[in-house]
Amino acid sequence: MCMNFSSKLLENAVNEFGKLPGVGQKTALRLVLHLLKQTKEETFSFTNSIDQMKEHIKHCKVCFNISDLEICEICASPQRDRSIICVVEDTRDVMAIENTEQFKGLYHVLGGLISPMDGIGPADLTIESLVQRLDGADVNEVIIALSATMEGDTTIFYLYRKLKDFPIHISTIARGIAFGGELEYVDELTLGRSIMTRVPYEHKIG
Amino acid sequence: MCMNFSSKLLENAVNEFGKLPGVGQKTALRLVLHLLKQTKEETFSFTNSIDQMKEHIKHCKVCFNISDLEICEICASPQRDRSIICVVEDTRDVMAIENTEQFKGLYHVLGGLISPMDGIGPADLTIESLVQRLDGADVNEVIIALSATMEGDTTIFYLYRKLKDFPIHISTIARGIAFGGELEYVDELTLGRSIMTRVPYEHKIG
Repeated sequence: MCMNFSSKLLENAVNEFGKLPGVGQKTALRLVLHLLKQTKEETFSFTNSIDQMKEHIKHCKVCFNISDLEICEICASPQRDRSIICVVEDTRDVMAIENTEQFKGLYHVLGGLISPMDGIGPADLTIESLVQRLDGADVNEVIIALSATMEGDTTIFYLYRKLKDFPIHISTIARGIAFGGELEYVDELTLGRSIMTRVPYEHKIG
Repeated sequence: MCMNFSSKLLENAVNEFGKLPGVGQKTALRLVLHLLKQTKEETFSFTNSIDQMKEHIKHCKVCFNISDLEICEICASPQRDRSIICVVEDTRDVMAIENTEQFKGLYHVLGGLISPMDGIGPADLTIESLVQRLDGADVNEVIIALSATMEGDTTIFYLYRKLKDFPIHISTIARGIAFGGELEYVDELTLGRSIMTRVPYEHKIG
């Protein structure tokens, strides 16, 4: 869409907003006009929060999760179980698993998934650091908690080959029917697998 | 939704993004993580464009449209017809009308619509400036081009009462069936009005 901007400053801001994922030109213009209507303090608080984050945010030296400190709160906590590491794609997955309150071990954030289509190979992820982290450490189990997509499966397969010689238990999170999911609407692959990987009734949660 | 942020800096940025209209917490997190993956220069270019805009943008002293200069390009142009003024809600409407290339007059940007529900009264808009602008100026016609909503209609009614004593033609943009619109899907009010305000065939455009 061609837009006739009455101001170069406005146009620049709209173009910058339009670079964000899922934000088109019309949405960008709406957001920029919203910021224009705010007070200077409110808009400065918006841009400042981004600048501050970009300037000062760190990645934990142990697990590579986003952190304000060199070592993140989870890795530094004496209450976490150091014998179990959960491998995830990014910080959103850490947040999602922390929300469940079902996991008390440590994490390892890969920073992405292997995706040849997007030019992301194993070297772009923190896989080598995971191998070094396991070397000599007192870890019993690695849980691989990645998305059930082609990229996720590729990454799981690569990780498994890298880790299989360590004296540790390697597991992946269970796949099956979601709680509240109705059987007739579940896709065939998931339903078939959930029958093959059925569990004894006494193990049932909930 | 409760989010367990691993970083206060990240949380601040997500909260600031979440204040934008139509941006929820999950979208805010996605956008912030996108900015985190960019280079420092790219992110700085984003925040700088907003800061620069907020610092230096002006409203044209004549028509109140957003502008980089004291007097906007349209008001300053010798090629525009100064005898006709089109009254619009905001800069987006100016852009939309400019895109049609059907209007060669000047604009007057109200900066909103009268909306008692949102606490916006006539004094919050640039109506008084429009009255002063018409006073003594060589203007033949004012076209009121506002949205066909309750707030738009209220504002048109108020404007009409303010302007009716001036020796000028007051018109509003035509309402009717959009080009490409199929008759059976048009709402009753629009269809009824479009029959009442029918035009002779020779006036038909296109």
